[in-house]
Amino acid sequence: MNFGRHISGQFNVELESIRTHVLTMGGLVEQQLSFAMQALHKEDVELARKVVRDDHKVNAMEVSIDEACTRIIAKRQPTAKDLRLIMAIIKTITDLERIGDVAARIANVAIENPSSEDKQFNVSLEPLCRQAVNMLHQVLDAFARMDVDAAAAVYKMDDRLDAEYEAVIRQLMTYMMEDPKNIPQILQVMWSARAIERVGDRCQNICEYIIYFVKGKDVRHLGEQSIDDALR
Amino acid sequence: MNFGRHISGQFNVELESIRTHVLTMGGLVEQQLSFAMQALHKEDVELARKVVRDDHKVNAMEVSIDEACTRIIAKRQPTAKDLRLIMAIIKTITDLERIGDVAARIANVAIENPSSEDKQFNVSLEPLCRQAVNMLHQVLDAFARMDVDAAAAVYKMDDRLDAEYEAVIRQLMTYMMEDPKNIPQILQVMWSARAIERVGDRCQNICEYIIYFVKGKDVRHLGEQSIDDALR
Repeated sequence: MNFGRHISGQFNVELESIRTHVLTMGGLVEQQLSFAMQALHKEDVELARKVVRDDHKVNAMEVSIDEACTRIIAKRQPTAKDLRLIMAIIKTITDLERIGDVAARIANVAIENPSSEDKQFNVSLEPLCRQAVNMLHQVLDAFARMDVDAAAAVYKMDDRLDAEYEAVIRQLMTYMMEDPKNIPQILQVMWSARAIERVGDRCQNICEYIIYFVKGKDVRHLGEQSIDDALR
Repeated sequence: MNFGRHISGQFNVELESIRTHVLTMGGLVEQQLSFAMQALHKEDVELARKVVRDDHKVNAMEVSIDEACTRIIAKRQPTAKDLRLIMAIIKTITDLERIGDVAARIANVAIENPSSEDKQFNVSLEPLCRQAVNMLHQVLDAFARMDVDAAAAVYKMDDRLDAEYEAVIRQLMTYMMEDPKNIPQILQVMWSARAIERVGDRCQNICEYIIYFVKGKDVRHLGEQSIDDALR
């Protein structure tokens, strides 16, 4: 990771430790999201409860990584690439924590609507869920290796997720119109779909932070073209 | 703001300049949100277009403040309260930028559904909008003065916003059931309501950063009680 140049071996150890914590947090968030979706599809209320119960672990990790970042800035006065790494981490964990919230929200839907009669609506979420979990998995992998090409590839996956989301919403809207008495339950599923779609946006944010760290260019708000340009 | 103790007068000037930029950005976001809501209620497509057009200004401010924060960390090696201020600012501008996105999204609804027949649905958003803009105004004011008591008061305003949101959703759900052919338009209004409700959460985040800066305590994820405790 190019930390080797520091005279202080302890600084390297500290940076590496923060990075490891981020990866652990990412792994936990991925598990939470994946469990929440399983719970929804298999109507597994117990698993859903576990996701809700474990959300505080994600929150605690965000707070403790933030603290470690602040400490390292105060103590080590990082500059250039080291500082960019810390900035990228501070932003990444905010997005990870929000993805954790999405997992908890979906788990709550699984707890509140456990009956099989809603199953037909939940089913529509399956491909969307799979794509979102996959995108998160890929972006965490890109983060672990600080691989900008992988990050750029993940960034582009969001288009497919958005298209799938639009399809899900259209389908759910049809269900609503067919039988208006199902509107309240279907709305719950729609909120979940929306939250999952937002997971894709958050993964895109993380892609941007990876590029910022490696290339030193802030490509936020500039779209796909600027990412291609930064990588050239 | 307690910056007076620095030997380097230039450091004070730089910190003060960043703080001023955050306030300017906050003012712009407040204007964007308030214009977007006006555009929706008065069916003013021109004003809505202006909001969408100006969103890039908010984005650019986020990027440039972030850059200034990174620069000041590298150059001035802040510690303690100065570092906390910079950390609080880095997080605050992320939330402000997202509130800017909400404004643009609502403006887009006003552009896509300009016809008066949807007006009855949009009307339900009025009190919600007013509360959200007010909450944002108050939190920016608390930020300007770094007033923790004001921040704690704003934090508690979110309960009312949530209650109003629930009422709006219930009302819109009734409209949907009464006349299913309106479902697509009503859904648009519901998404806006949801986005506005999230503005309240983002304002709460900013309250937490103010408390973090002033009190040195990270009260995120801990709820109202921990805020009261931190202020005691």
